[in-house]
Amino acid sequence: MTKRFDFTISATSGAARTGTIAMLRGEIRTPAFMPVGTAATVKGMKPEAVRAAGADIILGNTYHLMLRPGAERVAKLGGLHRFMNWDRPILTDSGGYQVMSLSDLNKLTEEGVEFRSHLDGSKHMLTPERSMEIQRLLGSDIVMAFDECPRADRPLAEIEASMEMSMRWAKRSRDGFDAGGEHADRAALFGIQQGALDENLRRRSAEALTEIGFDGYAIGGLAVGEGQEAMFATLDFAPAQLPQDAPRYLMGVGKPDDLVGAVERGVDMFDCVLPTRSGRNGQAFTWNGALNLRNARFAEDTGPLDDRCTCPTCATYSRAYLHHLIKSGEMLGAILLTEHNIGFYQQLMAAMREAIAEDRFAAFAQRFRDTYLGTG
Amino acid sequence: MTKRFDFTISATSGAARTGTIAMLRGEIRTPAFMPVGTAATVKGMKPEAVRAAGADIILGNTYHLMLRPGAERVAKLGGLHRFMNWDRPILTDSGGYQVMSLSDLNKLTEEGVEFRSHLDGSKHMLTPERSMEIQRLLGSDIVMAFDECPRADRPLAEIEASMEMSMRWAKRSRDGFDAGGEHADRAALFGIQQGALDENLRRRSAEALTEIGFDGYAIGGLAVGEGQEAMFATLDFAPAQLPQDAPRYLMGVGKPDDLVGAVERGVDMFDCVLPTRSGRNGQAFTWNGALNLRNARFAEDTGPLDDRCTCPTCATYSRAYLHHLIKSGEMLGAILLTEHNIGFYQQLMAAMREAIAEDRFAAFAQRFRDTYLGTG
Repeated sequence: MTKRFDFTISATSGAARTGTIAMLRGEIRTPAFMPVGTAATVKGMKPEAVRAAGADIILGNTYHLMLRPGAERVAKLGGLHRFMNWDRPILTDSGGYQVMSLSDLNKLTEEGVEFRSHLDGSKHMLTPERSMEIQRLLGSDIVMAFDECPRADRPLAEIEASMEMSMRWAKRSRDGFDAGGEHADRAALFGIQQGALDENLRRRSAEALTEIGFDGYAIGGLAVGEGQEAMFATLDFAPAQLPQDAPRYLMGVGKPDDLVGAVERGVDMFDCVLPTRSGRNGQAFTWNGALNLRNARFAEDTGPLDDRCTCPTCATYSRAYLHHLIKSGEMLGAILLTEHNIGFYQQLMAAMREAIAEDRFAAFAQRFRDTYLGTG
Repeated sequence: MTKRFDFTISATSGAARTGTIAMLRGEIRTPAFMPVGTAATVKGMKPEAVRAAGADIILGNTYHLMLRPGAERVAKLGGLHRFMNWDRPILTDSGGYQVMSLSDLNKLTEEGVEFRSHLDGSKHMLTPERSMEIQRLLGSDIVMAFDECPRADRPLAEIEASMEMSMRWAKRSRDGFDAGGEHADRAALFGIQQGALDENLRRRSAEALTEIGFDGYAIGGLAVGEGQEAMFATLDFAPAQLPQDAPRYLMGVGKPDDLVGAVERGVDMFDCVLPTRSGRNGQAFTWNGALNLRNARFAEDTGPLDDRCTCPTCATYSRAYLHHLIKSGEMLGAILLTEHNIGFYQQLMAAMREAIAEDRFAAFAQRFRDTYLGTG
């Protein structure tokens, strides 16, 4: 029988783990990178190309979808999977992060966040209960608890108070999710650890979440401007504070070297707009670092973006052609670079899974940094 | 043995003809619609999608490609086919039309046109000889003679003088093309009839071109603002002035009803940016007319764009989803509508070829207008 949510760790290498999450809509190989499909589309790619690149799961944004086309409308149209033609798992965020960073005139209380849409100024309220309802209406497979994510450089007392409220919201999210009827029998719910860079707050947050009980645990409040060094320092203790037998998801991360360093520290899941956004801006990720395709040095370069890459762009097109498309502002340049970047990210995850399975992750990570960062 | 250029008419229905052009890089079924690949890309589509839609040939623009990435650079990179990954025939225009409409500070003399690039202000000269050289460097399969295309509303004496110069340029184009060595053995050269809306000038132009001798003949100087009625009135006499056994190509046309009316009058080939440009702007062509996907009436419409259409967009996505993508400014909206429009245009051409083969074109055209224009 197919499971609602079953995480199996098949191998470890140091703190790194590899395994699978079995869900009703399909299996997720971990460590996993989830392409971001903000507004019911991974920007510039058809869903079949996202799948062909190797993605097992994508992410949708509650904040964007609740405003346009609207959660009730998506439900009426058969749910997010059918709407956008993606039949595998979808993780939806809670809207908590984006309602504070993108909306106008937001007002935060214990109840939730009142805000005005950045699209049309219309007034909305997002609470743990409404976030659960929206994610249920969308038909999400992995639902995220509604939380507040303060900047890591706020005073510690503020970070602490915010974390404590997020833990109360985590309990309300759990209750709201569990009241979701049939959807609660098919989907999973993840809690989100807060506490910024502070080990003690992170431990208290982990304990509060574990006490409530979730299918998986996200490490929130990182990748918000603190820098890689501070992020890695936090990841030196945060993952181990969370249950060993549940997936750990580092939200909004990151650059290829961020992913390798986080997997090395025990993280299982990631999402980030970087591969798609960079692709639209003419940046390509390769095993030898990032390339800016606007650079004139590529104008007559007949080689592929990366000669180890197996994506359709690298199989077919030269750097010279991609340079021409990007310089000319042609949509196909964004399409081909996005497809490459998503493909490269998936190939990087697959290489990490293989290195963990063969218990040689430390050597893999070192060689990756040598070539990717040019430190070799 | 595969032919350099062999046009066979297999059936006629009234003035409409259907057949094939056999060329070294593949066969072109006529009447044919050529998607426009201005800057070495059909905007928003991969070449395999263009081919899958049914296109046998695409068009490239000499003016754009000579400025960026440059004809000599394309030649150095192996030619346009290899550069953009399209291995079937490519027709290139001569640059004559766009150098007058797009460039800055152009100066027209008997020798040719001196102009400044609209991209960087650099100075260039385009002559019949240089146009032939550029099209050879690109590796074009069907080369267009270099001509001048005046607005149809200029005084008749100007139209006449311009047509006469274009005929002298046609001879210089023929000589330049024939001096192209090995390329001249593989490619074809088309002359371009001018003379605006005037039957007598058109006849003289056709006679001058026939005297020089070309593989095919374009009808130039239409679709420049004269309106469908005036265009059709000209097409009532212009095609018959040209050799019966060579393809006739109406440049820059057009809307679906333009294509049907022109095929009805004996035209074999077309190109136009309309399906791609409209797709990017949220307009979809269907058998029941054009749809503006921005319209709120599509917000909860679960049907396909067109229920007779066999394109991947119609097989997979609802009008509601496409409306959402277009409203959200998502690149995938432009991609999916472009693919539909190119698919619809190719399906329209295929339906016309079938109706001609079965000698029922007049009835087909009448039924098309009844449903497409809502005149039934």
